Amino acid sequence: MTTVNDGTGIGAELTNEEIFAAHEGGKLAVGVSAPLETARDLSIAYTPGVAQVSRAIASDPALADRYTWTQRLVAVVSDGTAVLGLGNIGPRASLPVMEGKSALFKSFAGLDSIPLVLDTTDVDEIVETLVRLRPSFGAVNLEDIAAPRCFELERRLIEALDCPVMHDDQHGTAVVVLAALRNAAKVVSRELGSLKVVISGAGAAGVACAKILHTAGVGEIVVLDSRGVIHAGRDDLTPIKQELAGFTNPRGITGGPAEVMRGADVVIGVSVGQIPEEWVASMAPGAIVFALSNPDPEIHPDVARRHAAVVATGRSDFPNQINNVLAFPGIFRGALDAGARRITDGMKVAAAEAIAAVAADDLSADHIVPSPLDPRVAPEVSAAVAKAARADGVAGA
Amino acid sequence: MTTVNDGTGIGAELTNEEIFAAHEGGKLAVGVSAPLETARDLSIAYTPGVAQVSRAIASDPALADRYTWTQRLVAVVSDGTAVLGLGNIGPRASLPVMEGKSALFKSFAGLDSIPLVLDTTDVDEIVETLVRLRPSFGAVNLEDIAAPRCFELERRLIEALDCPVMHDDQHGTAVVVLAALRNAAKVVSRELGSLKVVISGAGAAGVACAKILHTAGVGEIVVLDSRGVIHAGRDDLTPIKQELAGFTNPRGITGGPAEVMRGADVVIGVSVGQIPEEWVASMAPGAIVFALSNPDPEIHPDVARRHAAVVATGRSDFPNQINNVLAFPGIFRGALDAGARRITDGMKVAAAEAIAAVAADDLSADHIVPSPLDPRVAPEVSAAVAKAARADGVAGA
Repeated sequence: MTTVNDGTGIGAELTNEEIFAAHEGGKLAVGVSAPLETARDLSIAYTPGVAQVSRAIASDPALADRYTWTQRLVAVVSDGTAVLGLGNIGPRASLPVMEGKSALFKSFAGLDSIPLVLDTTDVDEIVETLVRLRPSFGAVNLEDIAAPRCFELERRLIEALDCPVMHDDQHGTAVVVLAALRNAAKVVSRELGSLKVVISGAGAAGVACAKILHTAGVGEIVVLDSRGVIHAGRDDLTPIKQELAGFTNPRGITGGPAEVMRGADVVIGVSVGQIPEEWVASMAPGAIVFALSNPDPEIHPDVARRHAAVVATGRSDFPNQINNVLAFPGIFRGALDAGARRITDGMKVAAAEAIAAVAADDLSADHIVPSPLDPRVAPEVSAAVAKAARADGVAGA
Repeated sequence: MTTVNDGTGIGAELTNEEIFAAHEGGKLAVGVSAPLETARDLSIAYTPGVAQVSRAIASDPALADRYTWTQRLVAVVSDGTAVLGLGNIGPRASLPVMEGKSALFKSFAGLDSIPLVLDTTDVDEIVETLVRLRPSFGAVNLEDIAAPRCFELERRLIEALDCPVMHDDQHGTAVVVLAALRNAAKVVSRELGSLKVVISGAGAAGVACAKILHTAGVGEIVVLDSRGVIHAGRDDLTPIKQELAGFTNPRGITGGPAEVMRGADVVIGVSVGQIPEEWVASMAPGAIVFALSNPDPEIHPDVARRHAAVVATGRSDFPNQINNVLAFPGIFRGALDAGARRITDGMKVAAAEAIAAVAADDLSADHIVPSPLDPRVAPEVSAAVAKAARADGVAGA
């Protein structure tokens, strides 16, 4: 019996035996809404009765939303190139993760969901494949697709498909980070607009965090990649980092992490790099530290708390777990409930506000986000997202 | 309240209201194998536990069959070009039919199944799409794809995919026809090898019937299309009809239906054409008539019975209903249980024999096939098909 010790507390108690036993035969099953036991059942659900429904949809395609499962069906799409901490393990090996994601959609938001894992990493081919399959689903959750390809893929799919598309590794994380930052700012009695924020990591999550914090009105954002501060003067920037350089780092800081951490109010770690204690010690008073790398945070939360007023991680065994499951089930449920054609920035910000509001009743330095298992979260997020979809003019008739 | 009167007896009692009510929200749902209610549940089904399973599959891809749902997952694939009697109504309108098919897979064979409807009718594009999605499923059931494109598509997919692929409108029908013919021949004390069979219709079902009856050793097969008897001398034959001309019509008959019906032992109607009473009257003594067009058989069974010893239709309100549901659930279940890489002729013939055997206990002119609801059929078919897969050397390790 091998024990999985991933350092998260829960993981330390898990054995390989129970993990594999729980995965035997996979984690999903398709169920039918009504039994097919009599000739009459068959004649309603299949021929000849079903012909009436097909004929109706042929006359009015919008009826497919009502008389098929697509309007609550999320395709969980991956090419297996950036799976958890395992990297590029391919589509087949990514399947248990995608089944898990589908199970979360069902458990937290009552949405049906099918994993579609693709044996290609070509952006054109993935877009083409999903365009052809478009009548089969109601929304696309992109998952575990490597940066920087994930940025182009998401953009292209949003253009090509008339349905909600979201890369959860980007926006799910960003939404929960914004929710947590809103509440952390309240704890230290600060306004978002006055905060200086350092984002350590310019991958999927880092880029999306920078964007949503900018949208939400955070005062100053500086992003670090492995080569230091991102600024417009660098000649080694990918297109997405050039975009970041356009709206971050307004003071044009150059140099490395030590320089930008000094005097910063917030640091958000979304890379596998380390954050040494002395950097946190150099931050402004009342500092906020989100060390989100999993399973090993960029700095141990107990160490960070020596200098910071609020600390959050991705781990379930410390306070303030930043977990995407707070966001994506409700975001997709709200978008589908509203018949939204896409997921706007306003819908993401609304989701963050709804998450923050659930924790606000009982706000403290150790409670800036709700528990991932809090059943109030998904319905609140869903309602807020649907409302924002209507406000943004992307909701269905 | 509109009453659907399709002439099948059951249909006459169905109202639009109850049909549409039964389709509200679609007919399928995704379920999860275990509840995700605690932090521990999450850590087993999702991170961090799932990483162990993904890592194992990355090392040994065959483990995906064991630890994901794919090995019991059938993709029900259609482009919506030949849906029931409705014709080319497109992928979106075909979805209720595909959901019904998935429901039948679950109800009759315990297989999970997802409808994948494609917004393209191009064979290259459909093949390419399914090749890219290959890691997502365990088998492909092609459905309601127009002839002659369905022949090329099925052939190309069988070549391109290392998993069972079957166009049910061809082979499901053909398997049940062979089962029914075996038992009908017993009823009239004839051997298959001595029978002269006329197949009226050279679409998906007609072509597949001709092939399986030839494989099963039927003596003489003649196929009719809308222009008359198919023979090698015709210069208007599509590739698939040229293939038919190669192994049917050994006496080189030319002319039309009246000529070939005279003295024939069996007629199998798989078109929307009519079979006048006088043609049946001209058949050999002890004639067998399968009038499978739905909802209106090529000849009314009561009329056919004036001259024929055994009559079958596709309708549930007359004896001997030839219904694909007798075949496809067990064929796919057996193929997947055996880990078969493809579905061989031997597996199809074995399926037909298993279906025939279930009805053989109680054989009569009015009972040559089991009821579509007979729960013995799918397990018997499945076992026979898995055995044939092993005998044919296409089973997994």
